[in-house]
Amino acid sequence: MRQVAQREDIRDLILDGVDSLLGRFGFRKMTMEDLAREVGIGKGTIYLHFPSKEELTLSHIDRIAERLLTNLRGIACSSAAPEERIRRMLVERVLFRFDSVYHYAQNLNDLLSSIRRDLLARRETYFEREADVLSQVLAEGRKAGVFDFSDARETARILIWSTNSLLPFSLSARELGRREELEERTLSITRVLLRGLIRRTAYRRGLKRPS
Amino acid sequence: MRQVAQREDIRDLILDGVDSLLGRFGFRKMTMEDLAREVGIGKGTIYLHFPSKEELTLSHIDRIAERLLTNLRGIACSSAAPEERIRRMLVERVLFRFDSVYHYAQNLNDLLSSIRRDLLARRETYFEREADVLSQVLAEGRKAGVFDFSDARETARILIWSTNSLLPFSLSARELGRREELEERTLSITRVLLRGLIRRTAYRRGLKRPS
Repeated sequence: MRQVAQREDIRDLILDGVDSLLGRFGFRKMTMEDLAREVGIGKGTIYLHFPSKEELTLSHIDRIAERLLTNLRGIACSSAAPEERIRRMLVERVLFRFDSVYHYAQNLNDLLSSIRRDLLARRETYFEREADVLSQVLAEGRKAGVFDFSDARETARILIWSTNSLLPFSLSARELGRREELEERTLSITRVLLRGLIRRTAYRRGLKRPS
Repeated sequence: MRQVAQREDIRDLILDGVDSLLGRFGFRKMTMEDLAREVGIGKGTIYLHFPSKEELTLSHIDRIAERLLTNLRGIACSSAAPEERIRRMLVERVLFRFDSVYHYAQNLNDLLSSIRRDLLARRETYFEREADVLSQVLAEGRKAGVFDFSDARETARILIWSTNSLLPFSLSARELGRREELEERTLSITRVLLRGLIRRTAYRRGLKRPS
């Protein structure tokens, strides 16, 4: 038990080191030597946990995705109205990622071009797990008569796809400097999507739905 | 006049060559020598039009964006209902790009990681021009009482952002093989967005809007 905890601690320490070095040197210039020095452990210990620099960086991004999921679950369990929770979750998935990479935004192109293929494959898993959490709130909202859709899972995916172009992966250098602009964009998209998902008043009032 | 025409012809011939070679060799392995041989002109002539391989490839992508715009304008001018035109335009902007790069989908990672930074900057211009065309149809639809929104331009941008994650730039190798899946995703997103933009029946019937 204690050994497992230690293993996780060391992994976390190493990933904290990656996070600092990405800010200081960027992906290409960062070496395993730098990292070992930064964390204060031997290079061998790093290789024990992560076979390569690519794997290190992908694990670092995995950790961002994990932490985001925790936050999304927190919002999902809150007492706000379902549409408000959906709005907050979509803003969180955009801004949490933005904030996580902001200190190395200048080096992000370097990183993202180097691990593009593997990252794209992993993103599919991240998005499916985010869709899990979103679909719970959607289903809850439908049950409460707020939303109107047929498949909660599919609707969650629509929310994910519609906001994915606002993640750091797809942002130009200019866009990566503008947190407020990003937040506004997310809110604009969310507004139209929610309007499309919220049960029509006419229907709630018992009028016939337009065919 | 004739010289201008010739200049455009040669540019087009060279870009046709790039398109074939990207399929055969991919971006990194493609050389200016290969290209000169493929087009049947001297290497010097190519450099006269395009200073570098990066510039060549970006111009090739510019041409795809130009051709897409022509198609979008065609749909914008058609006689279909505004919501149907919007739907077709969004599907076109996703599938036209997919079809344009499909024959070098296997080499796309190579290309997109090499020109990532410049391409992201150019994409902003492409998207603004697509938003131009979309906003005309949106404004027309609002005038006809179909849509309900305050700013046509901003609404056009929302449609662009919401479908941008379906462009080849953001697709994993697996996703790049699935045209039908992409079309379905585009249609699902579009369905919710249009539902959010179409004037509510209740409102049209003169009922009070929900506050």
